[in-house]
Amino acid sequence: MRTPLAALFVISALAFLRSSPCASSQAGGAAPLSDRTQACLSCHTIYTQGIVADWEQSRHARSSVRQALSRPEKERRVSVQAPEEAGVAYPDVAVGCAECHLLDPKLHEDTFSHNGYEVHVVVSPPDCAHCHPVEQEQYLAANKMSRAHGNLAANPVYRDLAEAVAGVRRAGNGDLRSSGGREAAPYESCFACHGTRVAVLGTRKIDARTESVEVPDLSGWPNTGAGRVNPDGSLGACSACHPRHCFSMAAAREPRTCARCHEGPDVPAWNVYENSKHGVLSSASREASAMDVVPWKLGRDFRAPTCAVCHASLIVDTEGAVVLKRTHGFGDRLWVRLFGLVYSHPQPLEPDTTRIRNATGQPLPVTLQGEPAAAFLIPPEEQSRRRRSMMTLCEGCHGTQWTTLHFGQFAATLENVDTAVRQGTALMQRAWAEGWAAPESLFDEALERLWTEQWLLCANGIRYTSAMAGAPDHAAFRGGWWGLSGSLVRLREAVEHGRRTAR
Amino acid sequence: MRTPLAALFVISALAFLRSSPCASSQAGGAAPLSDRTQACLSCHTIYTQGIVADWEQSRHARSSVRQALSRPEKERRVSVQAPEEAGVAYPDVAVGCAECHLLDPKLHEDTFSHNGYEVHVVVSPPDCAHCHPVEQEQYLAANKMSRAHGNLAANPVYRDLAEAVAGVRRAGNGDLRSSGGREAAPYESCFACHGTRVAVLGTRKIDARTESVEVPDLSGWPNTGAGRVNPDGSLGACSACHPRHCFSMAAAREPRTCARCHEGPDVPAWNVYENSKHGVLSSASREASAMDVVPWKLGRDFRAPTCAVCHASLIVDTEGAVVLKRTHGFGDRLWVRLFGLVYSHPQPLEPDTTRIRNATGQPLPVTLQGEPAAAFLIPPEEQSRRRRSMMTLCEGCHGTQWTTLHFGQFAATLENVDTAVRQGTALMQRAWAEGWAAPESLFDEALERLWTEQWLLCANGIRYTSAMAGAPDHAAFRGGWWGLSGSLVRLREAVEHGRRTAR
Amino acid sequence: MRTPLAALFVISALAFLRSSPCASSQAGGAAPLSDRTQACLSCHTIYTQGIVADWEQSRHARSSVRQALSRPEKERRVSVQAPEEAGVAYPDVAVGCAECHLLDPKLHEDTFSHNGYEVHVVVSPPDCAHCHPVEQEQYLAANKMSRAHGNLAANPVYRDLAEAVAGVRRAGNGDLRSSGGREAAPYESCFACHGTRVAVLGTRKIDARTESVEVPDLSGWPNTGAGRVNPDGSLGACSACHPRHCFSMAAAREPRTCARCHEGPDVPAWNVYENSKHGVLSSASREASAMDVVPWKLGRDFRAPTCAVCHASLIVDTEGAVVLKRTHGFGDRLWVRLFGLVYSHPQPLEPDTTRIRNATGQPLPVTLQGEPAAAFLIPPEEQSRRRRSMMTLCEGCHGTQWTTLHFGQFAATLENVDTAVRQGTALMQRAWAEGWAAPESLFDEALERLWTEQWLLCANGIRYTSAMAGAPDHAAFRGGWWGLSGSLVRLREAVEHGRRTAR
Repeated sequence: MRTPLAALFVISALAFLRSSPCASSQAGGAAPLSDRTQACLSCHTIYTQGIVADWEQSRHARSSVRQALSRPEKERRVSVQAPEEAGVAYPDVAVGCAECHLLDPKLHEDTFSHNGYEVHVVVSPPDCAHCHPVEQEQYLAANKMSRAHGNLAANPVYRDLAEAVAGVRRAGNGDLRSSGGREAAPYESCFACHGTRVAVLGTRKIDARTESVEVPDLSGWPNTGAGRVNPDGSLGACSACHPRHCFSMAAAREPRTCARCHEGPDVPAWNVYENSKHGVLSSASREASAMDVVPWKLGRDFRAPTCAVCHASLIVDTEGAVVLKRTHGFGDRLWVRLFGLVYSHPQPLEPDTTRIRNATGQPLPVTLQGEPAAAFLIPPEEQSRRRRSMMTLCEGCHGTQWTTLHFGQFAATLENVDTAVRQGTALMQRAWAEGWAAPESLFDEALERLWTEQWLLCANGIRYTSAMAGAPDHAAFRGGWWGLSGSLVRLREAVEHGRRTAR
Repeated sequence: MRTPLAALFVISALAFLRSSPCASSQAGGAAPLSDRTQACLSCHTIYTQGIVADWEQSRHARSSVRQALSRPEKERRVSVQAPEEAGVAYPDVAVGCAECHLLDPKLHEDTFSHNGYEVHVVVSPPDCAHCHPVEQEQYLAANKMSRAHGNLAANPVYRDLAEAVAGVRRAGNGDLRSSGGREAAPYESCFACHGTRVAVLGTRKIDARTESVEVPDLSGWPNTGAGRVNPDGSLGACSACHPRHCFSMAAAREPRTCARCHEGPDVPAWNVYENSKHGVLSSASREASAMDVVPWKLGRDFRAPTCAVCHASLIVDTEGAVVLKRTHGFGDRLWVRLFGLVYSHPQPLEPDTTRIRNATGQPLPVTLQGEPAAAFLIPPEEQSRRRRSMMTLCEGCHGTQWTTLHFGQFAATLENVDTAVRQGTALMQRAWAEGWAAPESLFDEALERLWTEQWLLCANGIRYTSAMAGAPDHAAFRGGWWGLSGSLVRLREAVEHGRRTAR
Repeated sequence: MRTPLAALFVISALAFLRSSPCASSQAGGAAPLSDRTQACLSCHTIYTQGIVADWEQSRHARSSVRQALSRPEKERRVSVQAPEEAGVAYPDVAVGCAECHLLDPKLHEDTFSHNGYEVHVVVSPPDCAHCHPVEQEQYLAANKMSRAHGNLAANPVYRDLAEAVAGVRRAGNGDLRSSGGREAAPYESCFACHGTRVAVLGTRKIDARTESVEVPDLSGWPNTGAGRVNPDGSLGACSACHPRHCFSMAAAREPRTCARCHEGPDVPAWNVYENSKHGVLSSASREASAMDVVPWKLGRDFRAPTCAVCHASLIVDTEGAVVLKRTHGFGDRLWVRLFGLVYSHPQPLEPDTTRIRNATGQPLPVTLQGEPAAAFLIPPEEQSRRRRSMMTLCEGCHGTQWTTLHFGQFAATLENVDTAVRQGTALMQRAWAEGWAAPESLFDEALERLWTEQWLLCANGIRYTSAMAGAPDHAAFRGGWWGLSGSLVRLREAVEHGRRTAR
């Protein structure tokens, strides 16, 4: 047990390098800090040490854009080609406080004067896009997450659901509406993931440790939701997945990073993954995985896929050939949308889903009878293309037949689940027609809540379990089929006896 | 933070060796590959790299049976004594693709011709048993998991429950039966753990990357359920716990491996363990644990038990003396069956539970009044013997009094829970007698579902919590007593007022 | 992959040192063992190897009090100043079996003669306080956990709730009371965390491995609840967080250690933390964290806070200046009590909450109308002081504005939640007044259970999520607002239609 202390030091340092989600193993001389960043650090190494320490261990703290571009293209973490043309003003310094928080001050409504600098609080995707333009572009063009705020807030049906969650009408004796204003209830529930609209209300004085500072007064802040509407009008928060202030790729590859939002019972992706074969092997081989390597090598750098492997990362084979290109438009590898509204359906054509109208005029991708709003959804050939790209990845570790039969089972399960949901919906429609519930809001009465839980909670558990060959109990007793079929029994009984409540 | 890169390399490699569930630290020269396996690899290193990479890090890839037998008996991972006599055709080559997938082609209904070889898809326990005969024997003789398919599918009461889970009758407006055929709903719920029957339907052409290949068309596949019925008629899937293609012992010792199926709410062993003292200490000392060492040394190789320590592994003390022998008949250390059907009861005499008949003729180990079907269950002396063997292990780390009182509390809790379940069952029987529910199916009506949740979900949470001194909330508010007692209140109210539904 | 075996040995040893929750990296010669401890070990290295192995890796096994005192004060893990005066009889030997189990034999009712020594079974906080007096003092003076047994058992309202959990009256056909006596049901649910009363019933003979031994016969044992009442009359179990027999600080800093009791759905601190940004970063940087270092350095030793960082540990900044002092009175940094009974309210003045009476005479910190029992709760200035101390810590890694707005949102959420709970409580009061439920017990009828779940399960999920910026689903669909608002709909419907049950 006794070992030379020098060795202990070496190991500890190495262990830190290897395992930290921030750690960089990048060789080469560190890039110099800009004067402006040094000015920031002169105070903030005292006042917000944790932020600085986090950043110090980041790649940003050591590498300039120019250095990043000196690597072979496949190994790069920046996508800008010509920094100067793209407006990178300081391509030869490390990426410090100033390089992000002082960018384009006029574009940011939350810019304030601070010790002689025009600083903005909320660093936004356009800021990051100075060096990472392709990522922002893909995110906006092909990732529904970028529109997560508006897709919820500007769709009257979904907004009604959000109201039913956090501020149901006619709930108690009084009218329990969600408190509005800057601290509304959905800010920590729905919009914690969907992203708030961060608005500048004016300025306020806050008592920092040594002085009173006048700063922008923000509503909807703090928030790191993936569809955040920023004070510069942009959409998204890169820090949702690349947490401040190390912004590492390794952190974004951690399944738990996705779990913060993709958690049960409504989106049980994490829960289903956690105890799936993939999840078990991934956590068991955690220490043996190279979470910070680019490109990511199948069968070498990881034993079993994490979320990022299947949905986002650049994956190469053991010879270095590209299996799948990196994408920040996570829809690129998805053909069917599991998250049924109320049925599974082909992925929307565009990330902005507010324009969708189904045949009955509702802003939903499927009618309640099950007819897809095909004009707004990807066509069959695009579905095939995307399914094929996912299967290519599966076939890195599974035989073609295994993969083919798995996806066949998956398609059959979606049909089975949608059939069950259709029965519940038919019962609900009868309840509306016969007056046992009022269709003005679809979510605020007892029967409607029972129906909502069928397609939103139970059905989603089954769908995700099937998609990822996940932990089987999410299809069995943990919600799943047991919950769905039991709920159908109760809903039917209520409707048949003309009751406003299920028992 | 700056360290020599050479050291980094060494550490990374070592870290991989130490931590991977596949990793082998075995010394000695690697065994040669057979020509047949080299033929497989010549293509599959290109097409299914992940499989090959997984296997390359396995013991199989480096060791021949003969080498494995050269170790002292306690350290061995093979149980065959004389390979040639046992039909090990190639005892001096590493265990590669061919050594498993080409074994006994005539016995496997899923054998197909592939580039001149007679390959079968589903490697089965009899294949593994060429080198690991004792394990298969124990698994079949004393592990209910080996009969998990038939015990569910061939028992009319349990089959009825499975129907109620995934295809309840009279659920919605129509008749929501489970879709039959090759992609039935229970394949991803009940039978994902219990194991499917893998049947060969004929052949089908599939589009592999470079060519179209004619392969056996299988139903019930893919599947890794512990009681899978294989195309050769055998029972079980070793890969349920020893995942392909490294098949490591370390992976089987990971609690999460068990969690895939032994998860709440019906079998909350994992949930109860996860935040128990044992679970907390085990995960906290994960990096310090030697998960791949044989034999497994108490107090040295692990700080706190995982599932395998208590239920399966060969455990030795610090002097190397055997504390408990390895067993693949997990019942060997279990006297009482927690999973109440509907009450806890002594373990069945045999893994095949379909023969059990209770005093009222039902295929259940206990009557609904609580009388055990004693003729089919282990007698008191065998219960004592098994309890004693478990206590021996506990006493490795706990004083005799601690252990004795813990097991006393456990027995009292089982009685308490069974008493509560008996009250619910009496209410249910009254409901059947008075016509508030129809006893033709025990699980498809609202009151029956409430009763099922009492013994299957709530009661099991309490029982497992007690057995493993688990996270107390599973006995309190997470289901547990709160759920059980609340459900009894609702069931009683319904029955007393003659209603078909609980409120 | 091949590396020198010597290096492997070094690494393995180091890995063990680094990662084990027991591991000590303490330099300097190990302290000698006392003769008495050597006598214990002469048998127990054979009989309870796991205990001895655990202890051998502890600091206790290597360090004497005198050695511990030789370190600079900030690095000390002992708080005694003058060992001899404090009654430390053997300040120069390692802390072995005898140093704890033979302490003050006359004070311990569970002392028994064992091979010539007067041994007591239950080592209690006063035993630990010989070397760690400040910790015990703080725990008793300012930590409600120290009174967790009495606060539950001696408060008629909470005792009624405990009865409703584990032994509800009028549940089934019979009278399902909790079995009393030594193995009562709440011992493994409520009192597993709150702590049992460990009483000496007499002596009993137990069959240890080689002989029959007469030992104290204990009820309420085994137990490691944080408010355990010990045979010496003292309160608490240090081993609740510092698990036997290494008693490490690292283990107490593991979030899962807290999770055993602070788990959902009633106290979902762990669940909310687990997938919060803090939780995700903490687990992702686990291998890079120095869990056993004193003092704990912000931004260096950990990337993101665990429970202990915010609620207990001595935290210093990168210059070594104290940010927050260590406290075992966890209330020191808490101003508001989230765990609503039935509303959130200022922390109690004293850990013993049995003396609290609200304006309607109930032993509750708030009336059912929402009026706090102000005389028993900390005043506003103390609330501010405590809030300020927590914000100081937050500001180590977050800007002042971020922190300020976060706590503003938190306060608003508590008000929103309490408003919702008030509506449910008003409905419940109407039900009691109109006879739809009987107020003799507040928790044993169907409507009362629905109401209890509103404030105890759903509301707590929202409150904890807000406090810790936790995983948003605990405020949304995992209980949370969806559960709370849905439950209000059902409760209102029942009360308005004059029904004893909700549907």
